[in-house]
Parts: sequence; structure tokens; C-alpha cells
Amino acid sequence: MSKAIPASVTRLIEAFAQLPGVGNKTASRLTYFLLRAPDRVSENLAQAILELKTKTRLCPICFNITEEEPCALCADPTRDASQVMVVEEPLDVLAMERTGSFNGRYHVLHGVISPREGIGPDQLKIRELIKRVQTDGIAELILALNANLEGDATAAYIRGELEAASLRPRLTRLARGLPNGADLEYADAVTLTRALQGRQAW
Amino acid sequence: MSKAIPASVTRLIEAFAQLPGVGNKTASRLTYFLLRAPDRVSENLAQAILELKTKTRLCPICFNITEEEPCALCADPTRDASQVMVVEEPLDVLAMERTGSFNGRYHVLHGVISPREGIGPDQLKIRELIKRVQTDGIAELILALNANLEGDATAAYIRGELEAASLRPRLTRLARGLPNGADLEYADAVTLTRALQGRQAW
Repeated sequence: MSKAIPASVTRLIEAFAQLPGVGNKTASRLTYFLLRAPDRVSENLAQAILELKTKTRLCPICFNITEEEPCALCADPTRDASQVMVVEEPLDVLAMERTGSFNGRYHVLHGVISPREGIGPDQLKIRELIKRVQTDGIAELILALNANLEGDATAAYIRGELEAASLRPRLTRLARGLPNGADLEYADAVTLTRALQGRQAW
Repeated sequence: MSKAIPASVTRLIEAFAQLPGVGNKTASRLTYFLLRAPDRVSENLAQAILELKTKTRLCPICFNITEEEPCALCADPTRDASQVMVVEEPLDVLAMERTGSFNGRYHVLHGVISPREGIGPDQLKIRELIKRVQTDGIAELILALNANLEGDATAAYIRGELEAASLRPRLTRLARGLPNGADLEYADAVTLTRALQGRQAW
């Protein structure tokens, strides 16, 4: 195998394979694509990777990725500062912004509590969230965490910390129920139970 | 959306999305992974991408990707120079070398004839192959092209060119039949037909 591949090719295959969801076969495909593509495709990609780290930082208020401080969302006076949506990842901000249905501010935790992966509350931006609630007059915290065990545990931890600090913003969570277009017949039991529990007057 | 993502993040997402099989969602995931990963992960990836182009070239004999001229496979005196396997892509060399079952040389065409994609014989290394057969005393050409229409058309074209040049190496193709572990019941009709036509004494 080493004879069939030059070292620089092996090196890029291995670098690609370190990315999440990229196995050895995909890494080879991407590498050989770049070998054939015009030089500017590789140069542009390499440049973009390098600039990503040098140009971006975390917003000191909401901890979303930004090039300016504070970020454009925190700096936007038309957004409701009294409503803060707590999310796990910057990608969640993106997903929510795409809907166009939310006009408040965000708070990015950068993960969830996960004993299995050794991630405790101190590695997340939870202390910063509590401080923000204390000082910024936040009326509602929308806990928009993933609908799984870690998301639930993290939400419970945040509620505990707010209570311990005698903070009482309105606490809400995203609704659980049938996803859009879902077929009742194929819905799993938990989803169906949650949809029933959360049923709404019509 | 532009407000939720800084320009440098958008730029990398767009650069990743130019890679084959990488859609917008995967591109976002890869980008946010690099944002969180240690700096050396990004630096290593960027460096590997840049070096890929500067360090590699095509072997002047077999047109496989190499850092030296000729490539390690062409330079290896223990490999049988009289047997040349014709493949479409450098990745095919890799796949064949992994089997450890072939000890001849290669010839990489860098594609197949595909009128649909505007690729004619002149864009492939077919002329170079014919010249190689003329000068290098090749006894057998194994046409190891993909088992599809374009592969078949390219094999037929190569046979025609060899005949036109009055060259008569032994011409062979990879066997068509059931893949290893296949269930007869689920095999498609073409595969089954080919497996029957190519049945072997046992």
C-alpha cells in the first residue's frame, strides 16, 4: 500500500479521516478529487481552514462564533434581549435562524453534560448563563436542547442552578411531538406519548 | 443567516461543499468541528492540502500519482513489466494493491470515455498506453475498467486502437460474476447472466 501511494497523499487521506463522519474511503475520494481539481480549489480550501481559526472567536455575551465582539446577533438592537434561547452548539443557532421564527438572543453552551464523555457543567457556558440572567434582565429562557437524555439532564441542571441563585425567569422548552409530515403509524412510542401529553386545544 | 454566521465560517462551509459527496449540512458539521478542534488539526489539514499539489505529479510511465519519477511501482524491478493493468483512476491502483494479488505494472487512464460528460479518448492516457505497448514489450493488457457502459466503451476503443496499430498483446478483462458473499436470490439479472456465462469448471 505504501508503494502505491506517495507520502503526501497518505498524509491528506489521514488528515481528512480525522474529520467526523469521514472514513478512510471517503478520505481517499476527497484526496483524489483535490488531486484532479484545479489548484485554486485546494488553495481556497486550505486558506479557508487557516482563516477559520485566526479570524473567529466566541462572542463574549452569547458564546456563538463571531468575527466581531459582540456578535452581530447580540449587537442587533431590533432583537428582543429579554428572551434568550439556550442551545448546545453554534449549528443550532444556524438551524433556528433559518426558520425566521425567533427574534430573541441566544446563549451557546458548547455541549451538554455527559458523564459518559467526561463533560461536566464546568466545561460548558452554564456559569456564564446564570450570570447573564442575573445581570441582563432576562424574562424568558427557552431551553432549546436536543431531545435526548443529555439534553434533559443539562436542562435540569440549569433549572437547579437558577433556583439556587434565586433567579426566576420564565423557563420554557421546545415542544415534543410529531415532526412535520410524520405518519402516526411509524412514530415511535416515546414521540407518540409526548405528542399526546402535549396535545393542544384545536 | 448571514448574521448568524461570520464570513470566514461561511467561506469554509462553501469550500467544503465543493468536495464530492459533501452537502451543505456535512460542510457545516466539518466546519464547526474544526472550530472546536485544537489548532494543529486545522493546520495539519491545511498543510496537507497545500502539499498534495506541490509535492505530487503523474508518473511519466503509468500516470499514477507519485512524488518521484518514475513512481515506486514502475521502478520496482520485482514487478512483472510484461503484464500491465489498465485502470480508470489512481484509487483503482490502491484497491488492487490492497488485494496483494497482482504483481505487474499499471496504466492509469484518468477517466473513461463519456460523451455525456464530454470526455473523449484524447483527454485520457490512451495514446500513451498504445505507445507503451509499442515500445515496452507488453505481453498482456488487463483491462480493469469499471463494470459499466463507459468502462465497456473505453475497453472497446482501446481494442480498436491496438488493432489499428497492429499490436497484439493478450487482452483480458476482469471476470464478471457474483460478488463475494452474494446471495443468489438478491443478485440482479445482469450479474446473474454474466455469472452464468462466465461459469468455470469445478
